Amino acid sequence: MRLSRYFLPILKETPKEAEIVSHRLMLRAGMIRQQSAGIYSWLPLGLKVLEKVGAIVREEQNRAGAIEILMPTIQAADLWRESGRYDDYGKEMLRIVDRHERDMLYGPTNEEMVTDIFRTAVRSYRDLPLNLYHIQWKFRDEVRPRFGVMRGREFLMKDAYSFDLDAEGARRSYNKMFVAYLRTFARLGLTAIPMKADSGPIGGDMTHEFIVLASTGESEVYCDRDLLDMPVPAVDIDFDGDLDPVVKSFTSRYAATEEMHDADVFGALPGERQVTARGIEVGHIFYFGTKYSEPMGAKVAGPDGAERPVHMGSYGIGVSRLVAGLIEASHDDAGIIWPESVAPFDVGIVNLKPGDAATDAACEDILARLEAAGRDVLYDDTEGRAGAKFATMDLIGLPWQVIVGPKGVADGTVELKRRATGERHSLPIDQVLARLSGA
Amino acid sequence: MRLSRYFLPILKETPKEAEIVSHRLMLRAGMIRQQSAGIYSWLPLGLKVLEKVGAIVREEQNRAGAIEILMPTIQAADLWRESGRYDDYGKEMLRIVDRHERDMLYGPTNEEMVTDIFRTAVRSYRDLPLNLYHIQWKFRDEVRPRFGVMRGREFLMKDAYSFDLDAEGARRSYNKMFVAYLRTFARLGLTAIPMKADSGPIGGDMTHEFIVLASTGESEVYCDRDLLDMPVPAVDIDFDGDLDPVVKSFTSRYAATEEMHDADVFGALPGERQVTARGIEVGHIFYFGTKYSEPMGAKVAGPDGAERPVHMGSYGIGVSRLVAGLIEASHDDAGIIWPESVAPFDVGIVNLKPGDAATDAACEDILARLEAAGRDVLYDDTEGRAGAKFATMDLIGLPWQVIVGPKGVADGTVELKRRATGERHSLPIDQVLARLSGA
Repeated sequence: MRLSRYFLPILKETPKEAEIVSHRLMLRAGMIRQQSAGIYSWLPLGLKVLEKVGAIVREEQNRAGAIEILMPTIQAADLWRESGRYDDYGKEMLRIVDRHERDMLYGPTNEEMVTDIFRTAVRSYRDLPLNLYHIQWKFRDEVRPRFGVMRGREFLMKDAYSFDLDAEGARRSYNKMFVAYLRTFARLGLTAIPMKADSGPIGGDMTHEFIVLASTGESEVYCDRDLLDMPVPAVDIDFDGDLDPVVKSFTSRYAATEEMHDADVFGALPGERQVTARGIEVGHIFYFGTKYSEPMGAKVAGPDGAERPVHMGSYGIGVSRLVAGLIEASHDDAGIIWPESVAPFDVGIVNLKPGDAATDAACEDILARLEAAGRDVLYDDTEGRAGAKFATMDLIGLPWQVIVGPKGVADGTVELKRRATGERHSLPIDQVLARLSGA
Repeated sequence: MRLSRYFLPILKETPKEAEIVSHRLMLRAGMIRQQSAGIYSWLPLGLKVLEKVGAIVREEQNRAGAIEILMPTIQAADLWRESGRYDDYGKEMLRIVDRHERDMLYGPTNEEMVTDIFRTAVRSYRDLPLNLYHIQWKFRDEVRPRFGVMRGREFLMKDAYSFDLDAEGARRSYNKMFVAYLRTFARLGLTAIPMKADSGPIGGDMTHEFIVLASTGESEVYCDRDLLDMPVPAVDIDFDGDLDPVVKSFTSRYAATEEMHDADVFGALPGERQVTARGIEVGHIFYFGTKYSEPMGAKVAGPDGAERPVHMGSYGIGVSRLVAGLIEASHDDAGIIWPESVAPFDVGIVNLKPGDAATDAACEDILARLEAAGRDVLYDDTEGRAGAKFATMDLIGLPWQVIVGPKGVADGTVELKRRATGERHSLPIDQVLARLSGA
């Protein structure tokens, strides 16, 4: 992509309404634009990251056996009256009356709707286990939306819902999502620690929040240092096998949010293993038994022929929030530092002298060859000072920059800069191409 | 994908609420489920088609130089007050009041919002032309939603918006979308005819509807038979070149919806070229000049330094509607017949005797080899009568079926069935694999 034909509205000044670094950088890098309080447009650069995050979430859900559907954003209030949540939900629910005076709402979550889909389609334990997920926009009418897409009103979420015959089956489904989440966050370049969450009236040990450590995190968290280096299950892990040992290797070590923290247990760890840090919640998995299946009549016949309500769990990942979380976890004073897996482009090319025939030709050649190798490239072919171009490239945080100027081109060299470290080397063009094409 | 692990809730009976064939078949094939009047969940099979249609639309938009963004579903009423449309729009607009008593709405279209994005980011003619598009859910509160996703309330639409310095530039942008639409519908396996639409108070010749011919279409259309066989621009067409000749080759021939029909002009065509048919509108492109840029202050400085409002056009494709349109255009009594480009799976494998070791092994081998070749395969590994399995495969309309039974396997053969023609041949397994892998 040529920058001259792209839409990348960089802001020169730091927007003063932005309180946290990810919000500031997303606005400055032209990733998003606020349309109303807590409601954003995703501009081209931001949308590319959002799509890449979503694609990794999707791949790992599919790998774990979950099946993708897409439920609508607008729901009938009557469905929520069946579970009793329509009256309970409070002002965060965006309530709507349609032209025929029917009560509707913009879904903040989809337990009721997916239970409705299930109950009309599934009758027998033979069709279980089943896990249906979607990646869809949700709305929560926060009283004070803030922190950009970290706590927006309209937000993109992956929510999965598992259906099993009994609690034992539900645990297997829960373990699959637990492992899928470990893999998902690792692929995003994040260290996300599963921390036991409050299971409320349901009770039990089957609810975890996944927390990314970042110095700018929203809340204090505590964990065993061992968790920072735990190996994440490999791509060929057998999701039909026994996942309990993997899950236990994580859950048997201390990890707690402020809410669930037990200072005595934490204090009993050897001092060097006591990690206190700031954290950002990026996922939440939750077993809730028959809470919805019972009132909504989502039953299957068991092997004995008797009908019983299914055991359910739900599994959320905040996809739009993750984009901000990634920036909170990886940035410096100059801007964003994207992990390669979700970078909006793999490589940026900076033409230091557009209009100079040899420099232009070298840039075009590098662009064509990197694209032929399957790299996604942003080529800054615009007029402008070198300093401003460097600042933009650092701000938008592409993993690699290729800096092309007339002097180097005369010698057959360009500069290769690695964004994460700032290292810059003058290298022969072919060497740069070989390195970036093989990546 | 193994059917035993998939979610494909086939309906045995024809739902009586469904008035048109695409609605009936989408419900029966387990593609969608109605959640409220005109509001649908997309089940796994339906979502796959929706995604494939969206991907083709996206590729052709990108090829034509349009840039993807994603605007939110919920908009502020104040933005629509700037254009004057908030009061004009009527009851089809879903109006919402948030918890702070602010007037909001669920976007039925995005002219105002994209104009707002443009005016805050672009100041100079040097940044033009610009075409921004998104593929996002919209809501129109139809008084009587019907025909399934053909005329739903919550629907997925691709809408692009072009910005140019003057009417001449706007024509070039219009032509690019015209050509992109020709290519998009052709890739979807559809014959879509551009027909001049009513330009209302804007006037001029720059508005066309793209109409798919289908015997079950919603309205009567008239066109010159030559248009049915017009060559569609190739993949390497130069979008920066002069596209006027291509556009004129289509627009110079007679084509009109009922609304725009001129019986005298049509009647002057040689009789064998007069085609009267039923049609379904699947796209609409429209130049509207400064209708929004003028009241909303979306101006750029021209080469002379003087500011002027930009000339705009909008370009819509009903993505969810297209899924139904494809079925209207391609089905038979047994079910859907998907074009290969958007089929939910490329191939279905029918195991006629699950549990028979040799048959199972043959199916697994065919599945593994087709998947290794990059084919997306649905393997019916379930118990059940052969007749029911054949009926399901025909209903869901995959282009190819591989039918595997113990007798054939003993001879090293399977049956290959082509859905579109019903042809069925007993062939050696390797020959079937070679044919389907190379496709």
